[in-house]
Amino acid sequence: MKGLVYDGPDQIAYEDQPDPQLRDDTDIIMRISLSTICGTDAHIIKGGVPTVRPGTILGHEATGVVEEVGASVKNVEVGDRILATCVSACGYCRFCTSGMYGQCLTGGWILGNTINGVQAEYARIPYARNSVYAIPDSLTDEQVLFLTDILATGYEVGVLAGKVSPGDTVVIVGAGPVGLSAALTAQLFSPRNIVVVERTAARRRFALEMGATHAVAEDEAHELVESLTDGLGADVTIEAVGFPDAFELTADLVRSGGHIANIGVHEGPATLHLEKLWAKQITLTTGIPSGLTIPQLMHSVSTGALDATPMITHRMALSEMESGYDTFLRAGETGAVKVVLSA
Amino acid sequence: MKGLVYDGPDQIAYEDQPDPQLRDDTDIIMRISLSTICGTDAHIIKGGVPTVRPGTILGHEATGVVEEVGASVKNVEVGDRILATCVSACGYCRFCTSGMYGQCLTGGWILGNTINGVQAEYARIPYARNSVYAIPDSLTDEQVLFLTDILATGYEVGVLAGKVSPGDTVVIVGAGPVGLSAALTAQLFSPRNIVVVERTAARRRFALEMGATHAVAEDEAHELVESLTDGLGADVTIEAVGFPDAFELTADLVRSGGHIANIGVHEGPATLHLEKLWAKQITLTTGIPSGLTIPQLMHSVSTGALDATPMITHRMALSEMESGYDTFLRAGETGAVKVVLSA
Amino acid sequence: MKGLVYDGPDQIAYEDQPDPQLRDDTDIIMRISLSTICGTDAHIIKGGVPTVRPGTILGHEATGVVEEVGASVKNVEVGDRILATCVSACGYCRFCTSGMYGQCLTGGWILGNTINGVQAEYARIPYARNSVYAIPDSLTDEQVLFLTDILATGYEVGVLAGKVSPGDTVVIVGAGPVGLSAALTAQLFSPRNIVVVERTAARRRFALEMGATHAVAEDEAHELVESLTDGLGADVTIEAVGFPDAFELTADLVRSGGHIANIGVHEGPATLHLEKLWAKQITLTTGIPSGLTIPQLMHSVSTGALDATPMITHRMALSEMESGYDTFLRAGETGAVKVVLSA
Amino acid sequence: MKGLVYDGPDQIAYEDQPDPQLRDDTDIIMRISLSTICGTDAHIIKGGVPTVRPGTILGHEATGVVEEVGASVKNVEVGDRILATCVSACGYCRFCTSGMYGQCLTGGWILGNTINGVQAEYARIPYARNSVYAIPDSLTDEQVLFLTDILATGYEVGVLAGKVSPGDTVVIVGAGPVGLSAALTAQLFSPRNIVVVERTAARRRFALEMGATHAVAEDEAHELVESLTDGLGADVTIEAVGFPDAFELTADLVRSGGHIANIGVHEGPATLHLEKLWAKQITLTTGIPSGLTIPQLMHSVSTGALDATPMITHRMALSEMESGYDTFLRAGETGAVKVVLSA
Repeated sequence: MKGLVYDGPDQIAYEDQPDPQLRDDTDIIMRISLSTICGTDAHIIKGGVPTVRPGTILGHEATGVVEEVGASVKNVEVGDRILATCVSACGYCRFCTSGMYGQCLTGGWILGNTINGVQAEYARIPYARNSVYAIPDSLTDEQVLFLTDILATGYEVGVLAGKVSPGDTVVIVGAGPVGLSAALTAQLFSPRNIVVVERTAARRRFALEMGATHAVAEDEAHELVESLTDGLGADVTIEAVGFPDAFELTADLVRSGGHIANIGVHEGPATLHLEKLWAKQITLTTGIPSGLTIPQLMHSVSTGALDATPMITHRMALSEMESGYDTFLRAGETGAVKVVLSA
Repeated sequence: MKGLVYDGPDQIAYEDQPDPQLRDDTDIIMRISLSTICGTDAHIIKGGVPTVRPGTILGHEATGVVEEVGASVKNVEVGDRILATCVSACGYCRFCTSGMYGQCLTGGWILGNTINGVQAEYARIPYARNSVYAIPDSLTDEQVLFLTDILATGYEVGVLAGKVSPGDTVVIVGAGPVGLSAALTAQLFSPRNIVVVERTAARRRFALEMGATHAVAEDEAHELVESLTDGLGADVTIEAVGFPDAFELTADLVRSGGHIANIGVHEGPATLHLEKLWAKQITLTTGIPSGLTIPQLMHSVSTGALDATPMITHRMALSEMESGYDTFLRAGETGAVKVVLSA
Repeated sequence: MKGLVYDGPDQIAYEDQPDPQLRDDTDIIMRISLSTICGTDAHIIKGGVPTVRPGTILGHEATGVVEEVGASVKNVEVGDRILATCVSACGYCRFCTSGMYGQCLTGGWILGNTINGVQAEYARIPYARNSVYAIPDSLTDEQVLFLTDILATGYEVGVLAGKVSPGDTVVIVGAGPVGLSAALTAQLFSPRNIVVVERTAARRRFALEMGATHAVAEDEAHELVESLTDGLGADVTIEAVGFPDAFELTADLVRSGGHIANIGVHEGPATLHLEKLWAKQITLTTGIPSGLTIPQLMHSVSTGALDATPMITHRMALSEMESGYDTFLRAGETGAVKVVLSA
Repeated sequence: MKGLVYDGPDQIAYEDQPDPQLRDDTDIIMRISLSTICGTDAHIIKGGVPTVRPGTILGHEATGVVEEVGASVKNVEVGDRILATCVSACGYCRFCTSGMYGQCLTGGWILGNTINGVQAEYARIPYARNSVYAIPDSLTDEQVLFLTDILATGYEVGVLAGKVSPGDTVVIVGAGPVGLSAALTAQLFSPRNIVVVERTAARRRFALEMGATHAVAEDEAHELVESLTDGLGADVTIEAVGFPDAFELTADLVRSGGHIANIGVHEGPATLHLEKLWAKQITLTTGIPSGLTIPQLMHSVSTGALDATPMITHRMALSEMESGYDTFLRAGETGAVKVVLSA
């Protein structure tokens, strides 16, 4: 089969690879129908994620069809249409039994990281019991593809951890795929204002199309949030960039008693202004998703309450994967949000 | 009457002051029976709390007797023995109605800060309805004095915000009065280990007497916590110092999925290592107490489950207030934890 | 002034009454602009609420203008447009400080019950600080009138207590004003299905107009809920009738691990089938609202996410109050949902 | 091997049975070291649990040693000392992934119910990954035996579901093994009062030895609880009997805003006095345990905070199982609380 292999910084190739084989009886083999490229993949190919060794097939977001099942897999059968979540969960360690699949002692985010991933024709998915979900007949693969990572991340790590509630003013810093996913899924809780703070004008326009009520550049954020909140600050602020200045902005825009939810992948530290925050009764959270909300979100997709397909700006064949990366990495020029590759 | 007046950096005097008068019908006038000195007062007299203007009577921790009540005060009567919490709460702003008295839009921590405090013979207590509690006949003033601030702070901002649970390993960085209060009140939830990290040997010994299961210096903390937690880290870490390195230590010692509760009063920023924490699913909280747990904690005092009186290392007369400050500020030599001044 | 006086079972009259006077400094006097009739009022005039003594002015839902304020009222001023919540809260008893205003030791639901109410030209509102809210200029009195009781009840006691979540299947038994309010406010959480169970065909049609996804008679409820939930039962069931059979239906339709929220006012006991429920891990809640969500719900009204005005089926003058009651009590013929009376 | 077989109402025999075999790769075979008899077993042998068919080996509480492991079991190895929880959890159904192992779609309480149990020399334990725990070397089998059911039940379904908190007044109706387990584990949260209501004088005395602060007969309960709570009622009431009158007593003794936690196994309905409760803002919960708190409780056992071994009133050999049942069923005469049978 073919897969997109990382061969060291700035070296990727869609090339022949051995077909994946079952190793554990909790594995399945999945034939990929749709795969997509994540901002994290961009970090990886710049060499920014040291756990990824050269020779690894990338990718942690895919739908497909079950090709083989390990002996102890009972939740899906050969031939089922499924999605595989970006996180692999053993289901029985202290973290999995607390619902923290992202912290699984032997799993977590390993697909396309410490083991081969899903930007390929086939993939081995470990811990399938707790990590794959059947797709209902009424939904297409495209409708559920982003549940595998960005929607679950925006929802669990942003909206739920931040405790977005009806009537709230929510600020989301960053209108990349994950920030947009937070903006989309925040709407499930009917906040009053969804303010997206984003550098790029095109992304701001797109955020408004996706349901943000306001979209501004960084330098306009303070004034806007003050005017919307009687000067108190936002109920919830969500960091979806991964840079220190973006984090500090979210910490600055939150009201007393509010929540800061960090989603961004950070490569370095940020400054925490405890001299301003120590008494403010704020709650700050970090994390990666468990995917445990995917069945619930699938209901919201089926009712039309959640539709992330407008984020698909480019559709290509799996065989055009290298071109897909190029399009995604030059998002400033191509306008790419999500590039979807199909078998 | 006499009161302890802050006259600018390093200038305090226990001197004649006008008797306090009722201003609002929600005020009471309280005759002080016991008052005590807080670490925050030490910040103030060094000039570290700019909201405190010269001429202010300090102090935000006291018991006493109701001398006069404003027309709309219904919860206490003249002659009642009471404690006054360090936080004054209007009871009806958006923060008070959410239980966040520390964020009260017109109150919060104002006693001995923006208005005259309780290191005096008499004091005006605003918003008495939501800010003073009658002391049951069965309890002495000394038994409840520390509920006014340090116990409520350690409990609400440390133990409850940190979600200490039975069987947990809890780390408390700093064995000053507030850290010790966290160690004491944590015991109400039967954690397995209470590890106090503290520079001073005498304070470490004292922490063990107060119920800590381990007390170590900073450089021993990592190894101890690892050995107690199978290398995972502590379930809850509590910062009770107010310095960046102490904060960073608490952030370093927490396990995936754990809680960091900041209690310390910080004068500057700290470094938040998001490159380590972004995926760890941690929760970080800050705050000041509401005092809303005081009735509950009074129950615990009455059953003997909570006894903070061993923290009283020095007892003096109110008239010896200046000497009390001297004793408290030279804690390294005097061994002072809490200095209590009585009428 | 004139007010609607209960003079014993089945005897009401809109008649001359003394003008209300300030008694406590926490009172206000309010000139009524809009008042409305509640299902509870129907209980009262049948003699079903023994706490209401003959001679009492009824009514606990009104908007109006502040005419006089007690000395300690700071949150509103003479001339302000306000709504008065159905529950009066002292703001400092153990229940008020826990956010349970309905359980206030000296307040709770007293308006139009143990003291004169708001179906009158003027009314005294006790504990105004915690019981009235200013209406923003951008909203009309009609838009916020139902926040005073039915929307707050449906939302707090039904939707929030039942923990309605995105993707859920919610069953509401009873499409009276409170059941419809639950159906309306449940939509703020984007459930997948809102099933209204109701005897009357006209009310079922109306429930669908108000956003229910399904509306059926009792005998169709089981089959529908099973088909919607793979036979598991509803995530949340809400009782909004107040009769034993309706309660038992809600208990029967809930899934394992689900929530039953009772809103209905019951005059007698119901049977709890513990032989079916003991192991099912259900949560059952009861209550009356605090009104603490009113500011939040007002935001939802202002964005258009919440519009209860279609429930106004009849508009009359305050002076036509007796006719208003007649219309409301003969709802089967008149189709009345809410009858609104204006000054 | 030998096992205790239910052969229809009032017919049990400890007799030869085929050795258990692995069936699924998630099974283990366990050699029993200690087993014990539960109140539920008493229901069964009276024919009160229709799911138990004649020919079934009873028992759902045991410690032992792993004899064989299915291919996909990774959490324990042959030779490990373990305890098996009373509930078998697949770990991946919608209930297991919500932490509700008792509601597992293909498991739940099946041991000694729909499949053979652990009152035998050997037993097959299904879904071992999520249902058995290794016993640390520092703890004896006796110290952890009751974690398999009664302690987990009292703690999860009583204390945690009821939200017992420091300073609370807790009422537990019934001082059988589960009621006593609730009384024991409630102490982990430092309540002020633990009132046990129990018919039998010997059990009341024992409850006091186990840490209850008060133990009274039914007819004394109201007066005591009123006197302890200023007439408000208990913060938490726990039903640990399984009869309607006991349930109604718990519902009667709870305060406004309080929690009623039902643990009792009920064979028929109870009356719920909604005419008293509809407005009281109570929360009522039911359930069976997940066992997910067992690791946490094991910590509490290891620190000495939790010691249930005094409940062992009788120790016998496994071969004396029939005599053990006789002793347990005649508890009134024998004083039996828990009868422990060892290999």
